[in-house]
Amino acid sequence: MTETQQRIAVDAMGGDDAPEAIVAGALRAAQANPAVEIQLYGDEAAIKQALADKTLPTNIVIIHAPEKIASDDEPVRAIRQKKDASMVMAARAVKAGEADAFISAGNSGALLASGLLIVGRMKGIERPGFMATLPNLSQIGEQWLLIDSGANTESKAKHLVQYARMGYTYAQVVQQKPNPSVGLLNNGSEASKGNDLTKAAYDLLAAEESIRFVGNIEARDVLAGAADVVVADGFTGNAVLKAVEGTSSQVMHVIKDTLKSGGLGTKMGALLIQKQLKATLKDLDYNKAGGAILFGVKAPVIKCHGSANADNIFYGIQQAVSILDAQIVPELTDIFADQAKQEKGE
Amino acid sequence: MTETQQRIAVDAMGGDDAPEAIVAGALRAAQANPAVEIQLYGDEAAIKQALADKTLPTNIVIIHAPEKIASDDEPVRAIRQKKDASMVMAARAVKAGEADAFISAGNSGALLASGLLIVGRMKGIERPGFMATLPNLSQIGEQWLLIDSGANTESKAKHLVQYARMGYTYAQVVQQKPNPSVGLLNNGSEASKGNDLTKAAYDLLAAEESIRFVGNIEARDVLAGAADVVVADGFTGNAVLKAVEGTSSQVMHVIKDTLKSGGLGTKMGALLIQKQLKATLKDLDYNKAGGAILFGVKAPVIKCHGSANADNIFYGIQQAVSILDAQIVPELTDIFADQAKQEKGE
Repeated sequence: MTETQQRIAVDAMGGDDAPEAIVAGALRAAQANPAVEIQLYGDEAAIKQALADKTLPTNIVIIHAPEKIASDDEPVRAIRQKKDASMVMAARAVKAGEADAFISAGNSGALLASGLLIVGRMKGIERPGFMATLPNLSQIGEQWLLIDSGANTESKAKHLVQYARMGYTYAQVVQQKPNPSVGLLNNGSEASKGNDLTKAAYDLLAAEESIRFVGNIEARDVLAGAADVVVADGFTGNAVLKAVEGTSSQVMHVIKDTLKSGGLGTKMGALLIQKQLKATLKDLDYNKAGGAILFGVKAPVIKCHGSANADNIFYGIQQAVSILDAQIVPELTDIFADQAKQEKGE
Repeated sequence: MTETQQRIAVDAMGGDDAPEAIVAGALRAAQANPAVEIQLYGDEAAIKQALADKTLPTNIVIIHAPEKIASDDEPVRAIRQKKDASMVMAARAVKAGEADAFISAGNSGALLASGLLIVGRMKGIERPGFMATLPNLSQIGEQWLLIDSGANTESKAKHLVQYARMGYTYAQVVQQKPNPSVGLLNNGSEASKGNDLTKAAYDLLAAEESIRFVGNIEARDVLAGAADVVVADGFTGNAVLKAVEGTSSQVMHVIKDTLKSGGLGTKMGALLIQKQLKATLKDLDYNKAGGAILFGVKAPVIKCHGSANADNIFYGIQQAVSILDAQIVPELTDIFADQAKQEKGE
């Protein structure tokens, strides 16, 4: 193992379909990235059972964790009391420098607390935020970012500016967009619109020279790719993320039901369009976007959906690999350390 | 004209396709409701041109308004300075008792200001809110209500309780649901979740005996009919409304594009499913839901989409007729007057 090898800590016990889905996703990722070490934290017997008769690739390590955090555990108390829980051990590995990033599909609040209290905040960042990657429905294959998608329930205007800088840097460095646009989620497109928070954030963002601010974005236009990075307070960002995900899945469900419930003609038609429709739905598949990144902590921390399947875990690990390859965390660390110094007048 | 005849004031000049779409919708509504008087406020020549060679039904009255409010006018200034604008004249007719309700697809802010400053607030209501009607995708044909969907940018917990009572009463009296459920839009389903506002609102709603409170609702579940009435602060409610509308329309757009762009098989399949799919999409058509009702003012004030077509205006007028038939405004007036008295200790 060389110094530059990436090591990714995976909480094998978090999520509705853990450990099976997590182990299956990790196996795929290990095969796709032979130079990356994947550390599976969890109940050793359960992980081995999930592996069944598959040979363990040499780049997967199992680290036994005798406890696990439940989805209804109170987050901060859980990470303090269950020191040998799979999620806590994975976070501690990052803190100790034994892993470079960590991923979990478990209790979101506990993941957030692990990121803040174990991995630790970057200097200069007060409130790390979750950044979600979503599909652009006007240009299939393109993606946009929503930050904060739910780490915080109360935000200040200056936090939104930090999200803007983090999202902008990610879009440049990881997504390789040369000059990504940054928009502010608001209740109207005019500059004068908004509540106290968005009005104050608008002024700060417009004055921020390190990003390309394109003004206010309404929630109806986000999926059409109105901006590469959409900045929001965590409460509204979370509501919009869930509304977008819920609506997509429910509209597709209604359409599938329509095709099934129709007469013979409809059923024949459904068979004919099946292949093409499946290809489109695959493009819109949220699982392929990986997870939400907790941005503003000292290492990449990725939250996959509670209902994550193997695909979602695979893409979450791929995302961690891309983030580590792009060295975005050291870059952000420099940016915010400089800013913190300037603010102190050093 | 008897005392009990309903008179509905329609702003013929508001909306992207005014006056044509408005006049066409009003004509349909006049034919469907021969006992209702429809007052069209706007440029008389333009309205007559929109009528073309159609005979004016006897229950439509044209009232010339020499001015109109533009979509980018500053709302409060516009309604103060343009006293002879179609929207302002329609609101003044309601205030003067010459009309019983008013409808516009014009500038939302100006409509809100007309409602608050000309029609006037109900006693006991501090912050009237917009209530939107949305389809329940789990039970096609059923609808749910979202209040406040965007009248206010800052809300207090006690305003959310008033929205809950207004929505509950509307669902009972107009939608004839015997015991509608009321949920609070929040970032998680557990009682402990939320920001300062939703935590405070949760406690007040749980203690409110006049409604059936079912707890927190996440934005991903609203379209699946998680509650008959979903209460939100106006900023988040607006974001969720727009996210739901934008996502539905963009997902359907992607599916339509898929069917068009495929090979011969897909095109044939698309033809076969067309009829069934159109029937489903019709059920989901937001235009059929009418408009957003400004609730908490002294008469029904209805805001149709800026892009309203004739269908939307027709359903908006039908909605006004139902609200007037159900006499919900007098009922709410009593409820909140009683409450205001109790709070004063009278």
